[in-house]
Amino acid sequence: MLEKFFYMNLLYDFYGQFLTERQSEIVEMYYNLNYSLGEIAEKLGISRQGVHDILKRAEELMLDYEKKLGLVNGYTVRMEKLNVAIKILEEVIVGLSDDKVTEKIVEVKNILVSLKES
Amino acid sequence: MLEKFFYMNLLYDFYGQFLTERQSEIVEMYYNLNYSLGEIAEKLGISRQGVHDILKRAEELMLDYEKKLGLVNGYTVRMEKLNVAIKILEEVIVGLSDDKVTEKIVEVKNILVSLKES
Repeated sequence: MLEKFFYMNLLYDFYGQFLTERQSEIVEMYYNLNYSLGEIAEKLGISRQGVHDILKRAEELMLDYEKKLGLVNGYTVRMEKLNVAIKILEEVIVGLSDDKVTEKIVEVKNILVSLKES
Repeated sequence: MLEKFFYMNLLYDFYGQFLTERQSEIVEMYYNLNYSLGEIAEKLGISRQGVHDILKRAEELMLDYEKKLGLVNGYTVRMEKLNVAIKILEEVIVGLSDDKVTEKIVEVKNILVSLKES
């Protein structure tokens, strides 16, 4: 369940801009703020079934974009690879005695860290 | 002009799947196969103005997606950073005498090369 919430939040990060305002609102309340369907219904003054339908439609839309563009998958794979690469560089740095080589490896490590953030 | 063709081909790589079949066909003929508007019009049996309008609409659509998702920009920045990092690692590798360190640096380099392809 937690995994689904995490995944939906990632989908929302990438594809949230394709949702309507109402869809965004409900996805955020449900997946980010962890309100229940009933709580959202009460807050927005619509039926629980209405909330459910809007949420389902938003999820389908985002999954459809992911099927076409695969951004979440690409991002996940990229992060894993970058993490492995950074870890190896950190191991290498610890054992190095040549300052100039260390400097270069640190430079590469910083580039990889910046890639994780972009 | 060449730059525009290169950029449009990148846009098409990322967002081509959002175009209609006809839009795709014309974008490919114009930007990839380098047919002129007149040639495309003749081949498809539609007016030159028609080709122009479809092409313009397809470009606008792709630019709109890029404004929302920034995939081409992200890709370009990523490639530049990866190229810099790979170049530094290659310089480091040449000067290394420790086989174990070299092995690890090569491993990182291979990860970065695989990231360029994903």
